[in-house]
Order: sequence, then C-alpha cells, then structure tokens
Amino acid sequence: MQTITTVAELRRALAEVRSADRRVGLVPTMGYLHDGHLALVAASRTQCDVTVVSIFVNPTQFGPNEDLSTYPRDFLRDQELCRDAGVAIVFAPDIQEIYPAQFETFVEPGELAKPMCGAFRPGHFRGVATVVGKLFNMVQPDVAFFGQKDFQQCAVVRRMAIDLNLPIEIITAQTVREPDGLAMSSRNRYLSEEERRRALAISRGLFAAADKFRSGERDAEQLIAIAREQLNTVDRLQYLELVDADTLKPAESPLRRTAALCAAAYVGSTRLIDNVILPLPNP
Amino acid sequence: MQTITTVAELRRALAEVRSADRRVGLVPTMGYLHDGHLALVAASRTQCDVTVVSIFVNPTQFGPNEDLSTYPRDFLRDQELCRDAGVAIVFAPDIQEIYPAQFETFVEPGELAKPMCGAFRPGHFRGVATVVGKLFNMVQPDVAFFGQKDFQQCAVVRRMAIDLNLPIEIITAQTVREPDGLAMSSRNRYLSEEERRRALAISRGLFAAADKFRSGERDAEQLIAIAREQLNTVDRLQYLELVDADTLKPAESPLRRTAALCAAAYVGSTRLIDNVILPLPNP
Repeated sequence: MQTITTVAELRRALAEVRSADRRVGLVPTMGYLHDGHLALVAASRTQCDVTVVSIFVNPTQFGPNEDLSTYPRDFLRDQELCRDAGVAIVFAPDIQEIYPAQFETFVEPGELAKPMCGAFRPGHFRGVATVVGKLFNMVQPDVAFFGQKDFQQCAVVRRMAIDLNLPIEIITAQTVREPDGLAMSSRNRYLSEEERRRALAISRGLFAAADKFRSGERDAEQLIAIAREQLNTVDRLQYLELVDADTLKPAESPLRRTAALCAAAYVGSTRLIDNVILPLPNP
Repeated sequence: MQTITTVAELRRALAEVRSADRRVGLVPTMGYLHDGHLALVAASRTQCDVTVVSIFVNPTQFGPNEDLSTYPRDFLRDQELCRDAGVAIVFAPDIQEIYPAQFETFVEPGELAKPMCGAFRPGHFRGVATVVGKLFNMVQPDVAFFGQKDFQQCAVVRRMAIDLNLPIEIITAQTVREPDGLAMSSRNRYLSEEERRRALAISRGLFAAADKFRSGERDAEQLIAIAREQLNTVDRLQYLELVDADTLKPAESPLRRTAALCAAAYVGSTRLIDNVILPLPNP
C-alpha cells in the first residue's frame, strides 16, 4: 500500500496502475475510519482492481460554528485499517494541496442540496460537491463508493456526476450499524456513555417507522409520527423528514414511490444523522 | 471528419481514437466560425493528433436580455470550415443533451469572474465555467484552446481547470483581427456598414495605448486616457479597465507587472469586447 500526499504523486502512481482493463475504485473519507468505511472498501475491492481511499477533513463543508477543529483524527490507525483491508493507495493531502491560496472555483449543487442538512448547514453541500468533484478529477476512478447514512450527500454527488458529465459510477452502500442499531459515524466518538444510550432513539425511531411501512402503512404523517415518538428523547431534533428518494422533496401521501425517512438530531453537543429507505416500485 | 451530437457517441468515438501517445485537443466554440476559431484549430493541429471542435450556443452564459435567440448560426458552413481545417470530430449537441431537465449543478467561479464582463453580465462566467467544465469532462482533452479576445474567460477557465484539478492544459491564442484591426467575433455580423466603421474605435484606442506603453509610458491613468480618447466614438463604452493580467484587479500605477487593457463597448445594439496585453517581466 502506498500513502500519497500530493496530487502530482497520486497521478503518477495511478498512471502506473491504470490500464484499459483495470478498474479504479475511490472511497472518499474524512478519516477516523470505521466499519462503514471498511464496507465501502470491501465493496470497491469486489468490483475494482485498484482501490484508492482518500482521507481529508474538508474545511469547506464545515460551517463556522461546526466541529472542524475537533473532528476526530487517527491517521496511523486509518493507514493500518486500509492496509489490512487491501487498499492500494491512501491519498492524504494537506489543506494547501487541496485549497491553495488562489483557490476560488466551487461546484454549486442545486435543489437537492436545499432541504434537510442543506437547510441547517448552509454551504455544506457546496463544500462536499467541490471536494468530491476535485477528488473525482484527481483520481479519475471508474466507480466511487458512498455510505447511505449520508443519503442527501449521495443524491447531491450522484447529481453532480451526471450534471458535470463525470464518467464515474456512484455506488451507495448500505449503512453499517452498531449491534444495537446506531449508525456508524466518526462523530459517535464524541458521545458520552449516557449520550450513546440516548442516541439510539434515532435508529429506533426510524426502524419503528420502517416496520410500520413494511406492515403496509403508507400515510406520511403516520410514519413520521411513529418515528417522532421515539425521537423525543434526543436533546434536539433538527429535522425528521419523509422525502421522495429521488427528488428529496416531501413525499406525497399516501406513499406511491420510494421514499427516505431522514433525521438529524443533537445528542448533547453531537449532531447525528440517519435515515431509512422505504422502498416502493417507482412508476 | 465525424459530426456527433450525443455525449455517449462522443465518448465512443474518442475511445476509439484515444491512446496513451495520441494527444486530444479541444476547441470549444459557439459556432459561426471565423478565422479566430480556425487559428485555434490550427494551433490544436500542430500540438495534438485529434482535434475536437464543439459547437454549442450555451444558454446559461447569456443574460435574460442578451442575444441568445439572435446569436448567428450557420452549422453547414461551420462543418465545411472544420472539415477543410482538418478537424477530426465536430461535437454539436442540442440543448437537452447538455442541460437535461434535472440539470442543477453549476461550476461557480470566484474573484476573477467579478470585474469587467462579470460585473455587466451577471451569471455569464458561471455559465461559461459550467459548460466548459462539462465539455472538458466529456472530451477529456489533453489541451484546450481559447482566444485572447475573451481575456477574462481565459482567466476564469484556466483558474477553474486548476481549482477543480482537471488535468488539461489551457492555451490562449492571440486574437485574430480583420486587416483594419477589428477583433474577429461572430457578433461582428450584427454590425451595419456604418457601425462596422465606428467599431474600429475599440481596437484603435487599445492599440494607441499599447503604442504609448511600448514607448515607455507606465502610468495607468495616462494609458487609459489615451484609449478613452479614441473610444468616445462608440455608442456606449461599458468599461475600459487596465487590470493586472493574473488577478484582473486594477493594475497598480506605475505598471510593474504584465497588465491587460480591456474594453467592452456598444456600437449600435452590438456589444463588442477587445483587449491588449501590456507585457512586463513579472517579479
């Protein structure tokens, strides 16, 4: 496994391994890897010959009062995990490599970036689209892998790839969860033991709604109410929305197309997100 | 020569001609080709094995009251000119191919897009950066060619390629002019005979300032004044600015770095732009 810190070096390394019949997979991360990330690596390894993991805590996707400075980091451990997982290249640039002094061009997403996290984190998806767009151009992968936990991010990135004609397949992998249901997230490490217990309300609420959906409930208000009942034990529910899985606009009730029930909540000072897909055969 | 109208077809055609040792050059145009465009094609042919000319009148770079609907078009003539010039592929997509219904992701340039044309044509360079970024991703050229007449566009596009890590060399070719000095532009065809004569004031003013610069004048106000003297015969001078050639910020006087004297003016209802570079050895 190679660890690379500059774009020039990355391009050289990829030029050596790339050829017409070798597929390159990219797993973009902010590091502090967990089993969710490793599932993306595993997915890449089944489909690609060369797997690149990028590790970069991207400042442009953090708001001024968010947790950029405290975002958890453990680069040595990340490297080890990548090596054990069969990653070919870890790309870990510093900030100047990604955003040199004169940097000023952004990728600006549209409607998909407006609701939910986009409403509460202004500029977040602009930062995500920009850094992912840059990583796509640096690595030029055949496939890129994202976790479903970041459902809106997946939608924004997929749209970006289509809109900007990036010839890259975007694969969304299922959310990996702790045994009790909590969605894996690097931010879980912020939680105290007591907060960790209360954080469970999020997945419990979403699962309760998904159960009800599976038993035939199609009324949007009902499904949201079932989730909200559980979710009132978090410290602050930022949003709980049932949206059309393609457009991210409020799902029409009764549900007739695949929807996603998405939540963001604070437990203590930690902001967590999660979602469940409610699948229907779209017309 | 192939004429291609879809991105899928374009990728197939390029996959056939592209190989490690064959360079692909792109000349992005809005059609109605003139000798300026053909000079870009010639430049591409000296440096590249395969030259692609795109012909697309890009609606996102036109303002609501601009000349999108009347922009001159002559596709059959353009095709002939390209064939005669040794172009390999003409890519002429329709609007839906470039901006399908769900399109919503833009490339947003920064400070370089704010002065001059950016100030008078809000959103213009966002449209330019977006469509050029898309074309870059579709064609994946090694080199792309732009004319110096669109000086600010060249700066925005070059910055975009760097900022978004597009591995594409941007080459700016000298402005091609009519024998009397008028910069070639598809929009020149809007001019009546009388307007055509008065339009000459633009290049005359810029050349007068460049002459004075070559004789040693370094005072910004003086150089601007010399150009403005000629330029008062146009119907409306939109801007006449002497800017640092790298940053596009007002040049510091006396000039100590390469500057560009840039003008936009209306002659009748036709908006024309032009510029001259005042070269100095940058520190």
